Amino acid sequence: MLEKLQTPLIIVNFKTYLEATGEKAVELAKKAEKVSLETKTSISVAPQFTDIATLAKTAKIPVFAQHIDPIQPGSHTGHVLAESVKETGAIGTLINHSERQLKLSDIDAIIKITRQKNLVSVVCANNPNTSAAVASLKPDIIAIEPPELIGTGIPVSKAKPEVITDTIKLVREINENVVILCGAGISRGEDVKAALKLGTQGVLVASGIVKAKDPYMVLREFAEATRV
Amino acid sequence: MLEKLQTPLIIVNFKTYLEATGEKAVELAKKAEKVSLETKTSISVAPQFTDIATLAKTAKIPVFAQHIDPIQPGSHTGHVLAESVKETGAIGTLINHSERQLKLSDIDAIIKITRQKNLVSVVCANNPNTSAAVASLKPDIIAIEPPELIGTGIPVSKAKPEVITDTIKLVREINENVVILCGAGISRGEDVKAALKLGTQGVLVASGIVKAKDPYMVLREFAEATRV
Amino acid sequence: MLEKLQTPLIIVNFKTYLEATGEKAVELAKKAEKVSLETKTSISVAPQFTDIATLAKTAKIPVFAQHIDPIQPGSHTGHVLAESVKETGAIGTLINHSERQLKLSDIDAIIKITRQKNLVSVVCANNPNTSAAVASLKPDIIAIEPPELIGTGIPVSKAKPEVITDTIKLVREINENVVILCGAGISRGEDVKAALKLGTQGVLVASGIVKAKDPYMVLREFAEATRV
Amino acid sequence: MLEKLQTPLIIVNFKTYLEATGEKAVELAKKAEKVSLETKTSISVAPQFTDIATLAKTAKIPVFAQHIDPIQPGSHTGHVLAESVKETGAIGTLINHSERQLKLSDIDAIIKITRQKNLVSVVCANNPNTSAAVASLKPDIIAIEPPELIGTGIPVSKAKPEVITDTIKLVREINENVVILCGAGISRGEDVKAALKLGTQGVLVASGIVKAKDPYMVLREFAEATRV
Repeated sequence: MLEKLQTPLIIVNFKTYLEATGEKAVELAKKAEKVSLETKTSISVAPQFTDIATLAKTAKIPVFAQHIDPIQPGSHTGHVLAESVKETGAIGTLINHSERQLKLSDIDAIIKITRQKNLVSVVCANNPNTSAAVASLKPDIIAIEPPELIGTGIPVSKAKPEVITDTIKLVREINENVVILCGAGISRGEDVKAALKLGTQGVLVASGIVKAKDPYMVLREFAEATRV
Repeated sequence: MLEKLQTPLIIVNFKTYLEATGEKAVELAKKAEKVSLETKTSISVAPQFTDIATLAKTAKIPVFAQHIDPIQPGSHTGHVLAESVKETGAIGTLINHSERQLKLSDIDAIIKITRQKNLVSVVCANNPNTSAAVASLKPDIIAIEPPELIGTGIPVSKAKPEVITDTIKLVREINENVVILCGAGISRGEDVKAALKLGTQGVLVASGIVKAKDPYMVLREFAEATRV
Repeated sequence: MLEKLQTPLIIVNFKTYLEATGEKAVELAKKAEKVSLETKTSISVAPQFTDIATLAKTAKIPVFAQHIDPIQPGSHTGHVLAESVKETGAIGTLINHSERQLKLSDIDAIIKITRQKNLVSVVCANNPNTSAAVASLKPDIIAIEPPELIGTGIPVSKAKPEVITDTIKLVREINENVVILCGAGISRGEDVKAALKLGTQGVLVASGIVKAKDPYMVLREFAEATRV
Repeated sequence: MLEKLQTPLIIVNFKTYLEATGEKAVELAKKAEKVSLETKTSISVAPQFTDIATLAKTAKIPVFAQHIDPIQPGSHTGHVLAESVKETGAIGTLINHSERQLKLSDIDAIIKITRQKNLVSVVCANNPNTSAAVASLKPDIIAIEPPELIGTGIPVSKAKPEVITDTIKLVREINENVVILCGAGISRGEDVKAALKLGTQGVLVASGIVKAKDPYMVLREFAEATRV
């Protein structure tokens, strides 16, 4: 499914924000779709589980789950099955977000499941070393997010550019093909520009868009910033 | 929301069975709805997160989530927010299923959240003592399920009737109003009948229905067995 | 083993404080022993796992583990076995401390293990409802600690006396015999006195003693405060 | 501390076996010490937390913890602090054993802690990919153990030699210096010999020694097998 995604790529993580729940998730996805079409930029959204089916049906942009579990179909009440995510029309899933961290062997197992189910795997990591570790597991996309900057509005691309450049260096020694995104604190177009300049292929963003007064305008600023 | 549920009550847990995922979840819910209308029996379904919205829209029977997290709206990527479940039209949620067990303080926190959001809380427990413990937390419904019998086809109402009677005794000393269900191994009408005779107010069932050759027929047998 | 403990009872939790690690754990236990002997007060200590054996050998006061796992002997690398704690000479264990919270069914399983192994169970709970829930599981001791006050120096007995009185009321309806302690923010003799006056049978304390400039003097103040 | 360990290296994991608890842990460590001295082979033991202090004092061979937590000194009741392990005289710790698996970021954090505290880190991994992932985190030792063979008596070196050779290949591309051990099902001298021949620098063993009728004799067989 990775072929559906061009880079640079913007993924908007809806987390469990009320501003991106239910009806509001649909509205926000519609805005993301509008920006994507208007600017011909690759924008994806990662809504809550309960909203995936609706968004995958109504929005003409790729939809990701925020997590799936390392399970096969069966007796796993309350867990998230790859097949159920796939059947909604979602294209892939975030894995190991800093707010939903996983055991190493589970990250490995989930990546294997996404490969079997033709889902795009976006594995989050908290620093250059763990990003390199993830690279050995061969996901489609790695998103480096220093947890101490998440939600702060202080962009990693400015506050800790060396985190990004070290990540790219270490990851590329192991894996030449994986797409590398960065996240945490991205809230302006110039943060996106800086991230791309440092060598990433896009951004993973949440509050910077979801909590913005005008998500459409900020996302548009982001999209325009991806055109170097 | 509890007023929408009459007892005796049958809740069908779809777990992460392929037979109850996506399109098949819709078909199964339709069968449950048919039995419910035909027999005027209270039947609810608990599908996967990704299927809740669709089922809550298409089925005229109450829909439950299989789990929610003890969180408030905010930065909780990959978690299940009560508000998002509520907005789909679901009526309540399972809590602490033996396949998704929770810390004691989280069970307490989730029950409080369901109360605030007007969702029905169905807390699972594995034995009479833990059922009594749960009773102190004042959920709407307690479902006693000895984990060693889940999925076996050996009904708790036959194999371990004392588990049910002990549960009822201990729970009633603490909480007169909570609805008590039993589960594990329930696969025939007579198992349902036995469960009610022992003093429960219904059953929580999964593979007995979902994996049945003819779920409609088995569910109909269950429904008829609830009429003493 | 409960017969070895008279009430009022003071349990000093060493947590993973450096001031109570290794050699310093021995020194602190010696001070606790001294106060216990001088004032004829029931004082116990709960050191780290690695220090239990040494303390149980050198100190003439009861020693508790801070946690045990719900396991039987076998393949459980990195877990804490009741038998290994017992064999050191420790008298019991804390269970479900707010910093090491457990699933409901695991609390139940651990209490059963302590009963089989003749270890004293001290189950921590975070509010009156969960304390009542724990009471149904029949531990030897319940310690109520509102987590928001732990380590603050603001004593629960002063800041939230109703938490204690509600706990005692709810627990006593279910279990007449369990010993009830309170903790969180206890740092002066008058806090201990207040806790006992409200109806508890002792205190669970950590930083108030371990981080005190003169742990001996503060513990002595505590001990004297237990004599009404 | 790694300099205290020569290769080939045998680490005996005591798990939570009764045959290796308390007094019996001391006896078993004495046997390991005897074989180590007699055969001039590098043998270490990894007992339960409660037995570390005693063994580190009485045995003249290196002692490892089975796990430590990713914590700093402070309020972490029931957790295992690196400093407390260090102060007992232990030389290092197992990390991420398949029976005590950890989040990726916690493995990284614990390795950093062991480096600061001059403890030897032995990180377990379940397959070649996760072993390579661990290699990026730069531990001192990696132990590859296919979980499906643990405790079976079917040696990985015979049943799945490609797991070992793939691991060595992938790990060496990333990290030239890390010591590589293998484990799971090792119960005879020839299994040890095969493991070394495949390119490992030693073995991690548990039931093969602990549950042996004559642990001294089997360990001696292992030690002799390390001399190629």
